[in-house]
Amino acid sequence: MAPPRRIDVVLDSVKRLQRIGASANLLNLLQKQHPADLAQIFGDLPDAGRQSVVSLLVERNPRLAMEAISEMSPEQGAALLAGRPAEEIAKLIQELPSDDAAALIDYLPEELSQPVLEMMRRRESGQVESLLEYGEQTAGRIMNPNVFALGEDLTVGEAILALQGSRDVEMVFYLYVVDARRHLVGVTSLRRLLLVSPETPLKRIMTPELISVRVETDQEEVARLVASYNLLAIPVVDEENKLAGVITVDDVIDVIKDEATEDLYRLAGVSGDDRPSTPAGESLRKRLPWLGVNLVTAFVAATVVAIFEGTIERVTALAIFMPIVAGMGGNAGTQTLTVIVRGIALGEVSWANARKALVKEALVGLGNGVTLGVLAALVAWGMKGDPILGVLLGMAMVINMSVAATAGTLVPLGLKALKIDPALASSVFITTLTDIAGFASFLGLATIFLRYLAQ
Amino acid sequence: MAPPRRIDVVLDSVKRLQRIGASANLLNLLQKQHPADLAQIFGDLPDAGRQSVVSLLVERNPRLAMEAISEMSPEQGAALLAGRPAEEIAKLIQELPSDDAAALIDYLPEELSQPVLEMMRRRESGQVESLLEYGEQTAGRIMNPNVFALGEDLTVGEAILALQGSRDVEMVFYLYVVDARRHLVGVTSLRRLLLVSPETPLKRIMTPELISVRVETDQEEVARLVASYNLLAIPVVDEENKLAGVITVDDVIDVIKDEATEDLYRLAGVSGDDRPSTPAGESLRKRLPWLGVNLVTAFVAATVVAIFEGTIERVTALAIFMPIVAGMGGNAGTQTLTVIVRGIALGEVSWANARKALVKEALVGLGNGVTLGVLAALVAWGMKGDPILGVLLGMAMVINMSVAATAGTLVPLGLKALKIDPALASSVFITTLTDIAGFASFLGLATIFLRYLAQ
Repeated sequence: MAPPRRIDVVLDSVKRLQRIGASANLLNLLQKQHPADLAQIFGDLPDAGRQSVVSLLVERNPRLAMEAISEMSPEQGAALLAGRPAEEIAKLIQELPSDDAAALIDYLPEELSQPVLEMMRRRESGQVESLLEYGEQTAGRIMNPNVFALGEDLTVGEAILALQGSRDVEMVFYLYVVDARRHLVGVTSLRRLLLVSPETPLKRIMTPELISVRVETDQEEVARLVASYNLLAIPVVDEENKLAGVITVDDVIDVIKDEATEDLYRLAGVSGDDRPSTPAGESLRKRLPWLGVNLVTAFVAATVVAIFEGTIERVTALAIFMPIVAGMGGNAGTQTLTVIVRGIALGEVSWANARKALVKEALVGLGNGVTLGVLAALVAWGMKGDPILGVLLGMAMVINMSVAATAGTLVPLGLKALKIDPALASSVFITTLTDIAGFASFLGLATIFLRYLAQ
Repeated sequence: MAPPRRIDVVLDSVKRLQRIGASANLLNLLQKQHPADLAQIFGDLPDAGRQSVVSLLVERNPRLAMEAISEMSPEQGAALLAGRPAEEIAKLIQELPSDDAAALIDYLPEELSQPVLEMMRRRESGQVESLLEYGEQTAGRIMNPNVFALGEDLTVGEAILALQGSRDVEMVFYLYVVDARRHLVGVTSLRRLLLVSPETPLKRIMTPELISVRVETDQEEVARLVASYNLLAIPVVDEENKLAGVITVDDVIDVIKDEATEDLYRLAGVSGDDRPSTPAGESLRKRLPWLGVNLVTAFVAATVVAIFEGTIERVTALAIFMPIVAGMGGNAGTQTLTVIVRGIALGEVSWANARKALVKEALVGLGNGVTLGVLAALVAWGMKGDPILGVLLGMAMVINMSVAATAGTLVPLGLKALKIDPALASSVFITTLTDIAGFASFLGLATIFLRYLAQ
């Protein structure tokens, strides 16, 4: 249906030119691409060909090559560089703004990152190193320390002159104003500079109240502020309120995407840096612990079944339907859990409205349980010809889906109250609980009403 | 640990002032808040008090009230307005830019949205209506049609004059340049205006190559472009390449969040507009179909168990362990699925590298299966004293976890190729498949090796 995307056409050309060894044409084609597109192309090339294409560009246009590499995920970017000597990496990384450089260095193997930092230090690139001193996922780590600031005593005309002299500054839209000791005192905009005469003191057109974050602020909080106040950038200050850097909205978009991936991943028990491109061995090591926890809980649920082994021995048909009770509880619980976990992440659910959410979800669980329980009862009756078996199946489903909805609301809220990420541990709790409650309610009811069941 | 957030302090004050009936103080407090904070406060107020607080602000400061309402989700915002007469809603909605107005009207109940649009039309607010004519989730629907553009024949000095006269324009950072018939011909920036003399023709400092989208472009594609090229805004053109509007990065952030929620929701079988605040009856109606599909597939899996009823009758212990095989396959499949679905959404996985992803996931699945299968075999042996039962359990787990990994990769890629959202249908496929493969492999092996099992 859709026409081939331009980038796929370019990718095919890159592969063809590489195959026939037309390096000059290949280089020419690569140099016409936007760094973001190059990043995509590098990622899509087969492993065998990737390194040579990257090397070609690194040799002839190191800046563009590094810009492309910094548009990839830091894991992928660092992997592309890791084959080179530390000296060369240090030189290449200096093509990048220090926030991007820090992200890459952070993902280099230890035996490379240390000498690279050492060499950069000798060349007086202390900035990258100081960024790496801030905690992971903090504002300090993702900010750009090259922030353009105007002195508060300038006039508008002087400010415009200063701007004209600052070619190297990343996207300027907010103009931060600082005092003589670089304390952040206000903000103004290019547009406001244009609306007044050049003699106007900058102080007169600046807004002294502005939203800033501290270097140690969590990046998720930074993203929340930028998104809710519709900002294009947010200034970062140190503990003395001195301007330390700026975080632009494009970096915030990356944070928002990463945090969404993290939530999605955590619900499924996958760790955030386990990507399609992660080597199999590493993915295996990352996923095993979660599956191990699940195996333990699966055996706990199996023990519940084992308690009722005698009942199953007398009515084997119970074994056929018991996974339905457990599974449907799991599905209903996952629905509730997803709504609540995402609601917590987006700030829509908190303790303030928890009771309301609980009542609602319990009603939904009960409604789902009754509707589907009746249906399941009829089908089971039809399959096995025993109406009592159907009724017990339906009753167990009502119980389990109500349990699922209640737990699906309370467990993430409880974890949140304990300062544990609700996305992290909720789903294993819920499936364990719905398995246990499902087996226990169905087999328990069957044991109580055993003499009414066809044996 | 954390100090109370400023907004929680404000919320408490709002509740207190409302309780003691101090309307003047309450209004004063509300008027000092940022619209985004008001939106949060409105959302957090108990249902009973919300309407009266909103009404107070609507009466005294309708613009601020509407700005706050437009910062809420459109469902919530529309619900707050829905109690008022159409005439008043029409008047209030005109306080908003037309993209925000259209979003709200879209969520009003039919019996209100029609008269509201009718009244707005009489007051010549055709813009909102024309936005609503674009398809849902397209660029046309979310763009701001009030885009500031400069004629290509202006000089820089004239452009600055034009800018100074345009107080009402939403964040200007890119300056789009159009020809006499409003065809988009280029882009420049405020900063570049400042770097040249006023007599310079605008044409000389504009970039003729710029990234734009069409009114019918899907909002997800818009978000992808803005995010990958680090844009602050993207121009929207009609089929003749005439400038129709602009989408700013703050709207793109909303799209990115919504799409992430959508992916998360779809994997759990929840529809995108099913929020914690959705009434129970509506949530029930929205979740039942998905659970219904799951019930059907659960019965299909139950039928597989029924085929082996004779085997279970002879070795009841099989009923204890069969949910483990199915469940562990489901967990492993969900991990693979999540990595692949998110990889597709972020553009990291495509047909180009599908084989590589498949080989990797199959290896991970095999590795997980062998490791956990051996563990499970030992535990089952310990529980039941039958080593053969343990071996069969382990073998079934290896088979099922390999099936899970393979299907977890192929199903979303296949759905993607069929132009179906992989997040939408993948998870029910995977759990059904892992249930069936789990029961069939374990009970099948048990049937084959029945005479070696302790009965």
